[in-house]
Amino acid sequence: MIDSPEELRRLPVEALRGVADELRGYIIETLSTHPGHLASSLGTVELTVALHYVFNTPDDKLVWDVGHQAYGHKILTGRREAFAGIRTMGGISGFPRREESEYDAFGTGHSSTSISAALGMATASRLAGNVGRKHIAVIGDGALTGGEAFEALNNAGTSKANLLVVLNDNGISIDKAVGGLNGYLLKVTSSRRYNELKRQVWQHTEGREWWRRWLSRLTQTAKALALGRTNLFEALGIRYFGPIDGHDLPHLVATLQRLKGIEGPVLLHVVTRKGRGLRRAEENPVTYHSPGRYNAATGERIAQRSEGKGPKYQDVFGATLVELAERFATVVGITPAMATGCGMTGMMECFPERTFDVGIAEQHAVTFAAGLAAGGMTPFCNIYSSFAQRAYDQIVHDVALQKLHVVLCLDRAGLVGEDGATHHGAFDLAMLRPIPNLTIAAPSDEHELRRMMYTACVSGDGAFVIRYPRGAGVLADWRCELEALEVGKGRKIFMSANGKGSANVGGMEARRSVALVCIGAVLHDALQAAERLRGEGWSTDVYDIRFLKPLDEDLLDEVAQGAYEKVVTVEDGVKKGGFGEAVMCYFADKHPEMTGKTTVLGIDDTFVMHGSVGELKHLCGIDAEGIYGRVMGVEI
Amino acid sequence: MIDSPEELRRLPVEALRGVADELRGYIIETLSTHPGHLASSLGTVELTVALHYVFNTPDDKLVWDVGHQAYGHKILTGRREAFAGIRTMGGISGFPRREESEYDAFGTGHSSTSISAALGMATASRLAGNVGRKHIAVIGDGALTGGEAFEALNNAGTSKANLLVVLNDNGISIDKAVGGLNGYLLKVTSSRRYNELKRQVWQHTEGREWWRRWLSRLTQTAKALALGRTNLFEALGIRYFGPIDGHDLPHLVATLQRLKGIEGPVLLHVVTRKGRGLRRAEENPVTYHSPGRYNAATGERIAQRSEGKGPKYQDVFGATLVELAERFATVVGITPAMATGCGMTGMMECFPERTFDVGIAEQHAVTFAAGLAAGGMTPFCNIYSSFAQRAYDQIVHDVALQKLHVVLCLDRAGLVGEDGATHHGAFDLAMLRPIPNLTIAAPSDEHELRRMMYTACVSGDGAFVIRYPRGAGVLADWRCELEALEVGKGRKIFMSANGKGSANVGGMEARRSVALVCIGAVLHDALQAAERLRGEGWSTDVYDIRFLKPLDEDLLDEVAQGAYEKVVTVEDGVKKGGFGEAVMCYFADKHPEMTGKTTVLGIDDTFVMHGSVGELKHLCGIDAEGIYGRVMGVEI
Repeated sequence: MIDSPEELRRLPVEALRGVADELRGYIIETLSTHPGHLASSLGTVELTVALHYVFNTPDDKLVWDVGHQAYGHKILTGRREAFAGIRTMGGISGFPRREESEYDAFGTGHSSTSISAALGMATASRLAGNVGRKHIAVIGDGALTGGEAFEALNNAGTSKANLLVVLNDNGISIDKAVGGLNGYLLKVTSSRRYNELKRQVWQHTEGREWWRRWLSRLTQTAKALALGRTNLFEALGIRYFGPIDGHDLPHLVATLQRLKGIEGPVLLHVVTRKGRGLRRAEENPVTYHSPGRYNAATGERIAQRSEGKGPKYQDVFGATLVELAERFATVVGITPAMATGCGMTGMMECFPERTFDVGIAEQHAVTFAAGLAAGGMTPFCNIYSSFAQRAYDQIVHDVALQKLHVVLCLDRAGLVGEDGATHHGAFDLAMLRPIPNLTIAAPSDEHELRRMMYTACVSGDGAFVIRYPRGAGVLADWRCELEALEVGKGRKIFMSANGKGSANVGGMEARRSVALVCIGAVLHDALQAAERLRGEGWSTDVYDIRFLKPLDEDLLDEVAQGAYEKVVTVEDGVKKGGFGEAVMCYFADKHPEMTGKTTVLGIDDTFVMHGSVGELKHLCGIDAEGIYGRVMGVEI
Repeated sequence: MIDSPEELRRLPVEALRGVADELRGYIIETLSTHPGHLASSLGTVELTVALHYVFNTPDDKLVWDVGHQAYGHKILTGRREAFAGIRTMGGISGFPRREESEYDAFGTGHSSTSISAALGMATASRLAGNVGRKHIAVIGDGALTGGEAFEALNNAGTSKANLLVVLNDNGISIDKAVGGLNGYLLKVTSSRRYNELKRQVWQHTEGREWWRRWLSRLTQTAKALALGRTNLFEALGIRYFGPIDGHDLPHLVATLQRLKGIEGPVLLHVVTRKGRGLRRAEENPVTYHSPGRYNAATGERIAQRSEGKGPKYQDVFGATLVELAERFATVVGITPAMATGCGMTGMMECFPERTFDVGIAEQHAVTFAAGLAAGGMTPFCNIYSSFAQRAYDQIVHDVALQKLHVVLCLDRAGLVGEDGATHHGAFDLAMLRPIPNLTIAAPSDEHELRRMMYTACVSGDGAFVIRYPRGAGVLADWRCELEALEVGKGRKIFMSANGKGSANVGGMEARRSVALVCIGAVLHDALQAAERLRGEGWSTDVYDIRFLKPLDEDLLDEVAQGAYEKVVTVEDGVKKGGFGEAVMCYFADKHPEMTGKTTVLGIDDTFVMHGSVGELKHLCGIDAEGIYGRVMGVEI
């Protein structure tokens, strides 16, 4: 019933429980039919209510790390009705966005940025003379393992910024949280030994003041200490409070109100349960991170209709990795906290010693892989394409420069759909192409993915990048022999007689001719377009370049010599610096007569928002219709 | 006198002092005439000797973080003679390189990678069944602030890896170390209170076993503790030892020998003095980080001959930033640990509250800048071009996507010379060009730098990138009015009559014509080439594009309509995805007839090693001679 935080703040504190319950119910109800990130937002309902109740948003600045836990925040800040359209084209985003609301102080999507951003805003407020404004970063224990969060804490500790870091500790990121930090937080939370011991000793020293003085000094010094301050955060200069129960609304409100009065950087450790309020989600927070449709009453998931013909690329990746690991003792798997999402759980079960979930830590993942390669292993390091932007320097400096045999698998390349602008793998081809010593491959289907993984495995020195999309492929039977491809060699697709018929032959005289030169899974959009074009009398050849680097110049020579009237390149990445421009520059160098008849299709120089993959491909003009239209000279 | 670690290990421990002294003397002597990184390597002489003495290198793996402290390591591992040629073309690198020596277990140059790499190698050894091999990462307290180091520690803490992290704590990175971590280490190092107190209490409890048991449990628990383990590193699961004196060789050797027997991840905290053994370097480690030539006996620096005509771009940047800060109250400066190197010390002195050295933390630097911009400030975030690779995702996700008004100044763009492959700013243009919402500018001289900084300041929304080279510019008088350029507009350079004469006119009939289209400081190489070409009868026009984004299409139309026989683009970055390709693709789209006569000059698809900037530009064919030769059709 709440339309804004102002309304919320007019309620008595006793009314907040009701608000939280309604909010939770509305999230569960809505997401049951409008899929989104469920479990994270359920865990932060009370925190969301308490933060908006205690702090004067939007003047006080609230930054949600990653942002998929901010659904309650969206609902409370004027987007209750819009919430039903979350993550759909034209609807609100699944993440905070500055353009969407003044309550979204900073856009997020990728992990571990919130403390840096909030510290920046707090510093700006201080410089502007606004000493009253508060700046809050809400960050999960998973996101805290990302190096940037540590860099920010290190700087916050010596600042005078009005910064409150709320550590939302649920022991889980997307998969189970890992690393020393996780163990540390668990220890902080569970141990009460010290206070108990101290109480006992105090009883024994009743009346002995000298002893008590010594004891006090000794324990204080041991704590405060010869070896640092009292805990990890205080070691960095940040006052630490907690842990407190993140679902106990009155306690949360009271604690936040007290902390509001403290100047300088403060951290509040809040323990929450991911999925809170929906039993199945609490029991299985990994599955219910983003569960798709489900029964709102029971939580039971509703079987999803598959988008494509085949299984998911992720499943094929996972199964193939296990096969390779069985065949080659050097194969190991690395994932930065996305074991389930990328399909590495099978490897984890079959080869636990050879599978490494390093937490949300893409930089470390890549250099760690480089170290493994230097030690003779064949690491398959799987990172979502857009998150690999985090490891750009490590790819250049630790892998490519040293020609180390790291297999970098970039999952969720191209347009990812509902997660939108922060998550599209739109830049990978363009950002990696300038880096020497990389082989860059993009499979057009599941068989190709398997072949490329095998090729990468046996290809000897140097880094091998394989980028492939999110979701279902096109082949019903994805199993095929693992065989090596020739690196840097593409192929011409011969179409079968039934409309996928062998091109350029048959009764109909081709009036006009076009070559569609593709990289990656958009090949299938091109094949559909080709079918339509043939129906219109266009002799249409389709090429699958397979490798961005090295580029198959022989195949491009063949295209150049094919006397096509038009050549269209197709990719699901940005045009600037991407595959099409690589082809164009090769033509300019070797076949300048081709440049005038070559068109590059891909993502224009703009960020693409959210929507279904199909809608977004259409928007970018890289679906079958867009390709067809471009060849026909019709704007679709 | 030592040619290999094997020889070193045959010496009695008492002989090591002599080795260390000789090593230090040789470094001081050699670098006095062959400039390099002095102070860091002086600080690690004893550590280097002790590590090679105790560990079985190269079978045990030794990784030097950043690597500029590894000169002693190079000398001890068979590169004593080669050391005189360090950082020169064809000579050994200033950083560890796997291709250079089997003792260089992992190449470094950028900061904070060593723990990840060593953990990778340790994991590989364990998987290969080699339980005896040791893996050592030597990391400075400055490098430890980089987020990747934390990501690695977090993972090391839960591993069983045979990993020794040597924390080389000298309280300084390149500039003075900053942040909470620094304060923490200082506290750890300086406090001896705890041990002293404990000793006193123990004396008082002589013979009272019950008391001792309680006290022991109490202090252990206080330490171990209700709030985590004993210190920052132990909180992450890594056994902590130290701090010990890093110049006390017998103690170092004894400690390392003891630690060698411990399995699993261990951290040894070693306190050293940067510049140790050369008084001036000890007193002024920032200046003596890389002092140029100096008197080996006194340490007095020898005035350096300037390479160019003008002052350094860094000085112009620094002075201009102060001017802008005086004029605009919103201007703030951010540097990740390079205040001296990038010229931000003046700003730091004039506006200490508005200048932020965030430590080696490029990711945080950029998101912090984004936060400041979101808070209404105009942050000038200065990052060395190659280090900006570390913040690629933050540039995309936090700055560009949100159209925040961050001014990103990329210092040391293009070829940097002696620091070599890890440090060349070769990728910036190509890696940033695919990112929407960025304005990307490159000044061709100091006036242009000033104008671009001013333009960035007043240009309103959106991110503004300015990339410029290391070292001296070309203008003797760099001062000029601060005036705004039109964003996205380049210029044709009109040459004066004296050989820089106005092109295309005058007595000599031009037989052939060429346009040289440049971005950045290579303009001056092109101007020299133009002079020679005119001497050969070529009508030569030179264009300064100024902006990679938005590209000046009007100016390119002018070039296309100029009826030039040839067009040559020139940049000091990689060709793949860079400026020249952008021009080529524009021509392909709008003036396809131009592509056949356009040539792209820049860095080929390979990593460029070290040498002087002049040598390297020549190697890449982007000096005056290379440009001239390419137009004339002569290979130089």
